Amino acid sequence: MNSVVALDVGGTLMKGAVVDRDGTARAVEQRPTLRQPDTVEGILAFAADLVASAGSPAAVGLAVPGIVDEARGVARYSSNLGWRDLPLRDIATDRLAVPVALTHDVRAGGVAEHEFGAARGVDDFLFLPIGTGIAGTVFAGGRPYRGADGMAGEIGHAPVPIGEELCACGQRGCLETYASAAALVRRYGDPGLSAADVVARAADDPRAAQVFGDAVRALGFALTTYTMLLDPALIVLGGGLAEAGETLLAPVRAELCARVTWRVPPRVVRAQLGSSAGRLGAAICAWGLVS
Amino acid sequence: MNSVVALDVGGTLMKGAVVDRDGTARAVEQRPTLRQPDTVEGILAFAADLVASAGSPAAVGLAVPGIVDEARGVARYSSNLGWRDLPLRDIATDRLAVPVALTHDVRAGGVAEHEFGAARGVDDFLFLPIGTGIAGTVFAGGRPYRGADGMAGEIGHAPVPIGEELCACGQRGCLETYASAAALVRRYGDPGLSAADVVARAADDPRAAQVFGDAVRALGFALTTYTMLLDPALIVLGGGLAEAGETLLAPVRAELCARVTWRVPPRVVRAQLGSSAGRLGAAICAWGLVS
Repeated sequence: MNSVVALDVGGTLMKGAVVDRDGTARAVEQRPTLRQPDTVEGILAFAADLVASAGSPAAVGLAVPGIVDEARGVARYSSNLGWRDLPLRDIATDRLAVPVALTHDVRAGGVAEHEFGAARGVDDFLFLPIGTGIAGTVFAGGRPYRGADGMAGEIGHAPVPIGEELCACGQRGCLETYASAAALVRRYGDPGLSAADVVARAADDPRAAQVFGDAVRALGFALTTYTMLLDPALIVLGGGLAEAGETLLAPVRAELCARVTWRVPPRVVRAQLGSSAGRLGAAICAWGLVS
Repeated sequence: MNSVVALDVGGTLMKGAVVDRDGTARAVEQRPTLRQPDTVEGILAFAADLVASAGSPAAVGLAVPGIVDEARGVARYSSNLGWRDLPLRDIATDRLAVPVALTHDVRAGGVAEHEFGAARGVDDFLFLPIGTGIAGTVFAGGRPYRGADGMAGEIGHAPVPIGEELCACGQRGCLETYASAAALVRRYGDPGLSAADVVARAADDPRAAQVFGDAVRALGFALTTYTMLLDPALIVLGGGLAEAGETLLAPVRAELCARVTWRVPPRVVRAQLGSSAGRLGAAICAWGLVS
């Protein structure tokens, strides 16, 4: 009972581990996320194997994308995973015979950065992973804020005045259409390159500079609005794009400082836990069930 | 001890009353806000008179504009009233010999709309009074959210893509420069008219239609971002401009619905308490000291 099982279910990969109280992970493993109709069975089989590795874990934490109702343990919607109103907590509890906590992957990442990472000791901050898409966790008073219906933090679909490109969500001009890692690749127009490649080329390739500049301006605009609305002490950028480090952070900071003139802008730092943040946050949620 | 004194200090007017537990106000009175160096003495003299009217009030609630630290009872900054780091709670407690609560005027208005007005029973909403300026109260989980440093809710200084007009705050393109009541008057260009006059003319005066249309587009843009970030159940528009009622609300709703396509937009309604919201909120804060 000195460990929990943690599983972070992404669009293509599941990241699992057995996690101790202090955050130490063992039996670390990744498996591909199965397509429908096998998605749930893939999650349950992976979780069952981790439970067996752990011996008798105190609890299981599952982090999933989309819209999640933690209180009811329901995965309400995910376009990537193709489910709707799935009572995943109860299904997993029946199968695993261990208490299960269900949480949202980005919220879990924010919880982990708050407990063990870049936002230790900070209670009011934005955790913003930038990957295929962009969604954030609004931390307010030391806790992730869910909103009226569990949909807070969708800053990726806030409009930005870069253009009117159609977003996958059906809206136009969303932050995500200009500043996600996928957007950098799509807008640069060479599918053989990664977003990191596009960022690296921005120094001497005008087309890459334009695409990267649009992303930075879009982020600066959205983060200015976030600052005005929520007065965060800190903005933590994570996800694949934040691996660019200061190459991303420095111009985003400059854009924010140029826009925010009458108050001190929040610090902008890089996430510290990388791709293990969601799994660690799932573990923290699992510990919350038993402490 | 069955009443409190409530005083809402605005840039030009102070609104005071003696308020009972159920929100009933008596001894309702307005006085002009005095200019510096007499501002604080004007507030204290008005409060003392109301305390005398009340007999022995249980507490006094003061609502002031600017940046307010409720916990320490300090009026940190107001450009209108010309003070900085003023320990107003302690000064008033000494003078009045009654417990004093200090709060922020817009936050007080939100608290009042939550308790007695348009947001009864709703815990996650935006209260947005639109007057000379624009500042909102972010209600999260049934309480006004202050942010890391007491500056949350400054949506009036969120950038909107209408233009790059210089705002009084030093930034460019702020919501307030296009959508406040003062902005409508300034941008229409006839100082003899009120914002309500400009709105009323929008039906058949192209210049008024342009100015009002910019305000509506600016509000729709900012409220879309608010919706994505915070997932409110409700947006309550107040202040002088909301007195236009459906003439303002209907196009703002249409703009929000046109932008927000993948989720149900929050309801947009008019505040119910009008200009007494701040005073009533100050009373609620005062009751909070003794119950």
